[in-house]
Amino acid sequence: MRTALTIAGSDSSGGAGIQADIKTMTVHGVFAMSAVTALTAQNTLGVTDIMEATPEFLAHQLDAVFTDIYPDAVKTGMVASSVLINTIADKLKEYEAKNLVVDPVMVATNGAKLISDEAIDTLKKRLLPMAMVITPNRPEAEVLTGLKIETPEDMEVAAKRIFEEFGCAVLMKGGHELNDANDLLCDATGMQWFYGKKIDNPNTHGTGCTLSSAIASNLALGHDLKTSVRLSKEFISKALAAMLNLGKGKGPMNHAFAIL
Amino acid sequence: MRTALTIAGSDSSGGAGIQADIKTMTVHGVFAMSAVTALTAQNTLGVTDIMEATPEFLAHQLDAVFTDIYPDAVKTGMVASSVLINTIADKLKEYEAKNLVVDPVMVATNGAKLISDEAIDTLKKRLLPMAMVITPNRPEAEVLTGLKIETPEDMEVAAKRIFEEFGCAVLMKGGHELNDANDLLCDATGMQWFYGKKIDNPNTHGTGCTLSSAIASNLALGHDLKTSVRLSKEFISKALAAMLNLGKGKGPMNHAFAIL
Repeated sequence: MRTALTIAGSDSSGGAGIQADIKTMTVHGVFAMSAVTALTAQNTLGVTDIMEATPEFLAHQLDAVFTDIYPDAVKTGMVASSVLINTIADKLKEYEAKNLVVDPVMVATNGAKLISDEAIDTLKKRLLPMAMVITPNRPEAEVLTGLKIETPEDMEVAAKRIFEEFGCAVLMKGGHELNDANDLLCDATGMQWFYGKKIDNPNTHGTGCTLSSAIASNLALGHDLKTSVRLSKEFISKALAAMLNLGKGKGPMNHAFAIL
Repeated sequence: MRTALTIAGSDSSGGAGIQADIKTMTVHGVFAMSAVTALTAQNTLGVTDIMEATPEFLAHQLDAVFTDIYPDAVKTGMVASSVLINTIADKLKEYEAKNLVVDPVMVATNGAKLISDEAIDTLKKRLLPMAMVITPNRPEAEVLTGLKIETPEDMEVAAKRIFEEFGCAVLMKGGHELNDANDLLCDATGMQWFYGKKIDNPNTHGTGCTLSSAIASNLALGHDLKTSVRLSKEFISKALAAMLNLGKGKGPMNHAFAIL
């Protein structure tokens, strides 16, 4: 059985964070492990409380995982502080982590900044250069490049810039507002568009977490990056198309759409 | 989609705790949520660090879940301190939680006490009387009754005593050392033995967590208690029979045995 590790926050409501990652990895037949960066008290209406892990405690979780069950792929999600990002980068380097997928969670799709400028700097300096692929949304790609991204052509320019600056492949998520969830992959072999299926489901809580952990799962299973991206986008489409409707706000997807 | 909540610790190595619970609920097609009582840095060789949630933070997680996506069943696992058990009991009462499965984690199968005497008292006074069913192993049933349990007949006497004292159904786990994983259910309708299939797999990390969350999943799906116990024992047998072998110590089961 292939194995994967998620390094991310915990979402009590189960739709995002390590919960979404564990669900995604498990339904891919991949053994999921986790290092929790922060606990959140959260539901589909918002976050009401946060309890961050200390750098020491996060390091102990990573040591426990890497020294016993080595992960075939690793995914990182929301990490709010510079010191925790440094801890992660140190440990991933120490253990020579492979197939690293970084979801550079920095800016919400509504444009709100989620982490400090210092944390963004550390992410850029330490974590992105270690990644096999990163999965920014459009606002995050704007932060990474300083460019305004308003058209598919802008996405191509920005993706190339990120690939050249950080040396990692980039899957830039277009989002429904720009085009029908068409995402752009830029790596050493060039550019490739992945055309999404427009699904009219407002319940999109955790789609970013789920996409990056699906890619990590598929890499852990031995697929190449392009195949992993294609399969992962299909997975998200099906999880959205299951039209789960839970909670009073933007609800979660159905990761278990294939079960029963 | 039916929903379930686990209230338990986090196991970084993914085999037990909320990770095992989320995997179990997900492969049952049940939407999993979680309230984390403590984070652990842990692998198949042992626990190296613990970071406990504060009572306030645990309460916030429970509020976030119950006020938005109401769980069709709830499972509680390892809760080490009296104050956290009181918090859980208060919130479960406030929100009138239904289909409560309590895994009264107190004593390891090797006999080592895992929680304080004060916490055991609180568990007995507050949580057990709210449960639909509790799932003690043999040493835990000895602590709950003060009886020595060495034969299947002893199990019957102890199970009846627990049912009468706490007013909850009891699934007492025999364990391989007493009989071939034959478990005894005692509820208002009487006693019923569930005969286990002996599976020669030393990798049993997380079996207790998995059994109780499988029962919660099946209750959430609308099955009655007896059917839920039967289906859950079949699930554990299959997860063990998949003969996963990960880690240097007592490894996890394959919760995803039916996938791929």
